Amino acid sequence: MEGMIKCSANYVPLTPISFLERSAIVYRDRVSVIYGDVKYTWKETHERCIRLASALAHLGISPGDVVAALAPNIPAMYELHFGVPMAGAVLCTLNVRHDSSMVSVLLKHSEAKLVFVDYQFLSIAQGALEILQETKTKLPLLVLISECGQPAPISSPGILEYESLLATGKLDFEVRWPKDEWDPISLNYTSGTTSSPKGVIYSHRGAYLNSFAAILLNEMSSMPVYLWCVPMFHCNGWCLTWAVAAQGGTNVCQRNVTAKDIFENIAQHKVTHLGGAPTVLNMIINASARDRKPLPGKVSVMTGGAPPPSHVLFKMEELGFHVIHAYGLTETYGPGTVCTWKPEWASLPRESQAKIKARQGVQHLGLEELDIKDPVTMKTVPADAKTMGEVMFRGNTVMNGYLKNLKATKDAFSGGWFRSGDLGVKHPDGYIELKDRSKDIIISGGENISSIEVESVLFSHPAVLEAAIVGRPDDYWGETPCAFVKLKDGCNEDSEELIKFCRDHLPHYMAPRTVVFQELPKTSTGKVQKFVLKEKAKAMGSIPKGNISKL
Amino acid sequence: MEGMIKCSANYVPLTPISFLERSAIVYRDRVSVIYGDVKYTWKETHERCIRLASALAHLGISPGDVVAALAPNIPAMYELHFGVPMAGAVLCTLNVRHDSSMVSVLLKHSEAKLVFVDYQFLSIAQGALEILQETKTKLPLLVLISECGQPAPISSPGILEYESLLATGKLDFEVRWPKDEWDPISLNYTSGTTSSPKGVIYSHRGAYLNSFAAILLNEMSSMPVYLWCVPMFHCNGWCLTWAVAAQGGTNVCQRNVTAKDIFENIAQHKVTHLGGAPTVLNMIINASARDRKPLPGKVSVMTGGAPPPSHVLFKMEELGFHVIHAYGLTETYGPGTVCTWKPEWASLPRESQAKIKARQGVQHLGLEELDIKDPVTMKTVPADAKTMGEVMFRGNTVMNGYLKNLKATKDAFSGGWFRSGDLGVKHPDGYIELKDRSKDIIISGGENISSIEVESVLFSHPAVLEAAIVGRPDDYWGETPCAFVKLKDGCNEDSEELIKFCRDHLPHYMAPRTVVFQELPKTSTGKVQKFVLKEKAKAMGSIPKGNISKL
Repeated sequence: MEGMIKCSANYVPLTPISFLERSAIVYRDRVSVIYGDVKYTWKETHERCIRLASALAHLGISPGDVVAALAPNIPAMYELHFGVPMAGAVLCTLNVRHDSSMVSVLLKHSEAKLVFVDYQFLSIAQGALEILQETKTKLPLLVLISECGQPAPISSPGILEYESLLATGKLDFEVRWPKDEWDPISLNYTSGTTSSPKGVIYSHRGAYLNSFAAILLNEMSSMPVYLWCVPMFHCNGWCLTWAVAAQGGTNVCQRNVTAKDIFENIAQHKVTHLGGAPTVLNMIINASARDRKPLPGKVSVMTGGAPPPSHVLFKMEELGFHVIHAYGLTETYGPGTVCTWKPEWASLPRESQAKIKARQGVQHLGLEELDIKDPVTMKTVPADAKTMGEVMFRGNTVMNGYLKNLKATKDAFSGGWFRSGDLGVKHPDGYIELKDRSKDIIISGGENISSIEVESVLFSHPAVLEAAIVGRPDDYWGETPCAFVKLKDGCNEDSEELIKFCRDHLPHYMAPRTVVFQELPKTSTGKVQKFVLKEKAKAMGSIPKGNISKL
Repeated sequence: MEGMIKCSANYVPLTPISFLERSAIVYRDRVSVIYGDVKYTWKETHERCIRLASALAHLGISPGDVVAALAPNIPAMYELHFGVPMAGAVLCTLNVRHDSSMVSVLLKHSEAKLVFVDYQFLSIAQGALEILQETKTKLPLLVLISECGQPAPISSPGILEYESLLATGKLDFEVRWPKDEWDPISLNYTSGTTSSPKGVIYSHRGAYLNSFAAILLNEMSSMPVYLWCVPMFHCNGWCLTWAVAAQGGTNVCQRNVTAKDIFENIAQHKVTHLGGAPTVLNMIINASARDRKPLPGKVSVMTGGAPPPSHVLFKMEELGFHVIHAYGLTETYGPGTVCTWKPEWASLPRESQAKIKARQGVQHLGLEELDIKDPVTMKTVPADAKTMGEVMFRGNTVMNGYLKNLKATKDAFSGGWFRSGDLGVKHPDGYIELKDRSKDIIISGGENISSIEVESVLFSHPAVLEAAIVGRPDDYWGETPCAFVKLKDGCNEDSEELIKFCRDHLPHYMAPRTVVFQELPKTSTGKVQKFVLKEKAKAMGSIPKGNISKL
């Protein structure tokens, strides 16, 4: 059409930087970040991020450079989510549970020019740098983040310190806006439920749009108070680092996630929203009476990472929390679906409600399409709640690709959809339900056994605190389910009891034949590391044929 | 960064069409549209829009073609907002208050290939086509929209009918997605507070982003019930045609906007949101006791077009409505700013609250920047609540330009900002307040008089229902304020009384010297057509010099 002009008046690349710029005006005097006694307003956070970007530029960080961070949910980590992109750089947040060896691998792979390190993780980072030095890799500059509001605990003359660095930044720094909204904003290494992390690239556009979707699926109105339990290094805190800025909310930071701190922060700061894997929910419902505090109002909790077991849901809601179940992967910027709640479900029996809420649901507003497809034919499976297929995504909130791994990117996008590797079914109402990771499914005597289904039965046993099912080699059946279980304090149920319970509630072939009692190995986001358990089950050796009658 | 691939898995042009596609899954069985006894679900609305798009394609409508509509807020009008873009075409909604002559001008200018016409406006449209025929312009195809759920009142063999046309559409039609999200989705002619309408081009991208912003600024959670008082032909219903679909809401349509219907619909359908110019608010607060009904719950009302007078705000809130004040222009897709309410304001005196709420506020989340600038130097005016400047916008929710009027587009965007033509001030807290349209300001003896300020004083007089101030030529002062006033039923205050009231509440030079009692001429969106009043004031002739002492 004639008469159109594309210019700065009507076209701006989409980026979360805009959220901060706007909040510095609209919410200027509202509290942006709280951490213990430390408090900032949005005006201050904006200024600190500008200074940070300016200081990074002064250190020689150029557009497109990677800047890494190894830190828990502290104010500096929040500021990095804006300051680094404002310098035109790409933020690579590292999991604080990694050891020096893994950190060195990721620093090398990402070619980070600089790494911000919280003082608690300094020795890990220094260990990583030593490894890099041995391999003659060019070392990233290290910036130490001291405890907020306290003097730097270590005075190494060669180490830059975060607050001192900020002080060198200029307020008149010209923000380096992305030239193209498709440009990378962050790099998230997959969290390691498998043993080979991949560098997932997020764009400014995707981050902007997923933040919008996150606002809506968290049911966040203006000026929420968000309690940080989800690590910011995981999918940039499910994009809420940016989304909370968009709504002018208050970020309540905490270094460690404990039930006591959660309840205390909720009461003290009138928290309206928080998020966490089901393990965080577990922590909340199992809190001692001494640690609990009454909620000051409605508190919405978004959970994801694994479907919330029904007894966890019941207890959360008894305590007054409103639970929202979302699902996604690092590759979908965190949440890609949400189990949108329909008012008519409120009149269903409690058990049915819990079953519905455990579904992964439907795509959120930022995602274009969600489907369950046959991974070979790419045909949509029937919406019969039975036929399994692979969960696939399509839309602007799917990653740009895997850093330096074009083959993996091509594989993930083959057929024009992002292949999640998760298996699920579609219900007649269009809601999807996860059955398993493709690699976690147990094939026993030709039957597919969903580890999630067996786990959910175990979870419903009153003595079980945590449970995970993997396949154990079996001479006759190929493999059979093997349960790893952590009992609640004071419980001492044995294998026989738990196996009988499963056989009472499941087809017999699905019941575990082995039960191991132990702590479950987890990623920092609370996901069970099944590959560790699989190796252990394998190491236990094959179950001999003589035992067939039990099935 | 190496490893990235842009493909259908991770890149989709932003378009409101996605909202409908998603709601047809997520909200499939929820009511999408209600009109009297007619009800559709989202699944049905989706199917009807696919059929509509298919039928349009079959009639030869090609991507980029303009399809016009002349209809009130009826279900077909809602469907056109999706069906026309799904055929790749551009929707041009026409103001139903236009006469045949204006309709013919707009049909010709837009080169509409087809025009949908509601049966009530058939003679207007036919009149327009006759004019076009005389000028030997190629005529658009006319499609008649009969009253929903009733047989077609007219059986002209040459005229296509909406429902019959839909019946010819195919459900397997392949939706024509925009190739580029910058492609036009709709054409909105400016509503005529000036006498020369311009065709404002909206893009799929802008419509998508402004819809997101509209959801947030209307404080719409999932599944709202929206009562249509804002004409859909005005800025595509402030983008709520699309936004309500995004949230799976229910659209309560009404052919005419009356106080009785508003209260009845609210009660019957449990309306949660509505919108309207201050005239609609006026209608609500002045409803007779017989027409009023108690509200079934919280009802949010977004108002814009003119600042809501404080007594109107008070009465609305007494009735239980929650008023949100937004501001924008056709060129900003409707609302571009919102007076974001801060909790601490709730403890201010009522009058102060009303004054704050009458401000136009701050940019919404979809708009990049809002500023008050000196139109010559482009410098930001001081945030002192006093220095006037031109309101300017920048961001993705600013129009693509004016159709076939590159010069006007260039002028509007000169300096890299959209120049609104509105004059305002910025308060120290960053909120803007409108003072006047640049062309409506009255210059009296060298002093600028804001017509809005004088009007707000008149509005606070208990007898005044409506008031507008324009300049009248004055031999001594150049011009002086002339008031056009409509009194409430049963009131008979005279000029002397109103002028005295103004002099008691304003500097004397700002008080009107002439008061004319009459109905105010308005656009269909309730905006007073000041150019009509200005001509009338001019025709009244100059006030002679002898009368100076009164000032």
